[in-house]
Amino acid sequence: MKLYINAIGHYTPKEVIPNDYFKKMNGLDDEWIFKRTGIKTRVRSTEEENSNSMGIDAVKALATQYTGALEGVDLIVGATYSPYDTVLTLAHAVQREFELKGAKATTITSACSSFVNALEIAEMYIKAGKCQKALIVASECNSCYSNDVCSKSGHLWGDGAGCVVISAEKTNEKDPEIVDIISEGLGHIGQADESVYLRPANGKLEMPIGRDVFVNACTYMAKAVEDITLKNGITTDEIDYLIPHQANIRIMRNVASGLKIPEEKVVTNVDTLGNTGSASTVIGLSQIYSEVKSGSNVVFTVFGGGYSMGGVYVKF
Amino acid sequence: MKLYINAIGHYTPKEVIPNDYFKKMNGLDDEWIFKRTGIKTRVRSTEEENSNSMGIDAVKALATQYTGALEGVDLIVGATYSPYDTVLTLAHAVQREFELKGAKATTITSACSSFVNALEIAEMYIKAGKCQKALIVASECNSCYSNDVCSKSGHLWGDGAGCVVISAEKTNEKDPEIVDIISEGLGHIGQADESVYLRPANGKLEMPIGRDVFVNACTYMAKAVEDITLKNGITTDEIDYLIPHQANIRIMRNVASGLKIPEEKVVTNVDTLGNTGSASTVIGLSQIYSEVKSGSNVVFTVFGGGYSMGGVYVKF
Repeated sequence: MKLYINAIGHYTPKEVIPNDYFKKMNGLDDEWIFKRTGIKTRVRSTEEENSNSMGIDAVKALATQYTGALEGVDLIVGATYSPYDTVLTLAHAVQREFELKGAKATTITSACSSFVNALEIAEMYIKAGKCQKALIVASECNSCYSNDVCSKSGHLWGDGAGCVVISAEKTNEKDPEIVDIISEGLGHIGQADESVYLRPANGKLEMPIGRDVFVNACTYMAKAVEDITLKNGITTDEIDYLIPHQANIRIMRNVASGLKIPEEKVVTNVDTLGNTGSASTVIGLSQIYSEVKSGSNVVFTVFGGGYSMGGVYVKF
Repeated sequence: MKLYINAIGHYTPKEVIPNDYFKKMNGLDDEWIFKRTGIKTRVRSTEEENSNSMGIDAVKALATQYTGALEGVDLIVGATYSPYDTVLTLAHAVQREFELKGAKATTITSACSSFVNALEIAEMYIKAGKCQKALIVASECNSCYSNDVCSKSGHLWGDGAGCVVISAEKTNEKDPEIVDIISEGLGHIGQADESVYLRPANGKLEMPIGRDVFVNACTYMAKAVEDITLKNGITTDEIDYLIPHQANIRIMRNVASGLKIPEEKVVTNVDTLGNTGSASTVIGLSQIYSEVKSGSNVVFTVFGGGYSMGGVYVKF
């Protein structure tokens, strides 16, 4: 059975926060932030927005562009580590907004790997024959939990959401194929238990040991690309677009250069959006979607706090 | 392909909170609480405990009782709406504690339906052939988020965790078969968006509109039993143990009496543990596991805030 992306959409909030804002918040200046992270601005939700509302806005964008794409959706998988409500979860809020009756619904977290894990869960339901058409929505309201005065990570975070509808049928001529999805939990390695955390009952999103995240992200994001290309019989040279999790431009450059993938093939949005968590890769795909030529190989690679790795190979 | 439960375990914290405690907290007395909810006591974690630590303790109980049960686990699915950490999720914390290298890991929420949804996700990975052996852990630290002074729901909540290992192979002679799992998101019905919520960035676990939860739980928990029995060719008379989500004894009695299932077949622990959320059914199964005779039909039925329904049919 083959799997296809039938529709895609994303939403990013309008408010733009320049690096200068952090000078008075956590003492870091524009030059330092840009040099160390590649971030010039990040986007941030309003007080009325949250990870549920942004997920809904991303699905609205999808539904506007792809008429009928939500018809027959029988599985909704939400992905977020920055939940608005763990009871009316992201998936349930989307189900309510679009009246997706009869659909299964659940919302997952594997931190910044969540979109890839959610996509893989949908793959399993479709391949096992229990569902036919899935809506996967990743949405992060980092600013709902982040700490602007923290000089270790306050300046990193952006907010945003992205979504796809997938099924075993092409509904448009150009629907790309999801050739493979890989994922692996890495909770047992390094300082996965304390390097980055969001403990909602006890405080904010913090990254006290960024070094451990950086080193492991570089290692395992490269490994995810090697694993998924090797498994599917393509070389890293044949990758046309590499979409890495948008944590930090230095991680992305390290991964790409280690794999000898030229920087112009690396899709980035961290410069304008900041780190939008698990939504960053699907937003990246949505941004380039209309320009990708038939025959192109697109590879996602992600690393999540906690830790996790994952990869997706999409053939246009 | 058939699926079997290879191992099971649970953990409940030692601290017991009697109804009398709430007289001074939210003004409700023992008689009123017991009459309206069936709860005499609830158990509560210490300040050092949380949903990750209790999940680990449940897996320790499983591993102690079933030697070698964790060997070869290649998928860990956590289930919780009361997360300790949305980055080092329940599944990742378990992976770290037991060094379950090479396993996929993610943690889901569908509120009190989460265990059933997590079990279904594991079913999909095994049936699609991507994993062979799954550890599913449900853990709720309601007291990390609940509000003792709230007279609408403060007195309801208990803490606890339960877990199972499942695979397509029997590893013990008596391993029961998971015959079927059903689930459905109901985010679109009733007051799913406001009747019960946990919005971690904005406050505590609250249930302002218990009436809407009660009515829909009665309707859909009965429906889940009817659906799964009909689908699998058994009658409700043939159910030997009904394990309902332990929200409230009046909901459980309403569901059982509507289906003409005698009360002695209904497994309950809400009287001593309180509402342990998504962990309540797997704790219930773990509590009766050694006494269930070969040939018995065990049916779970759950309803989750937000809303969701689900059912599991286990044949011993």
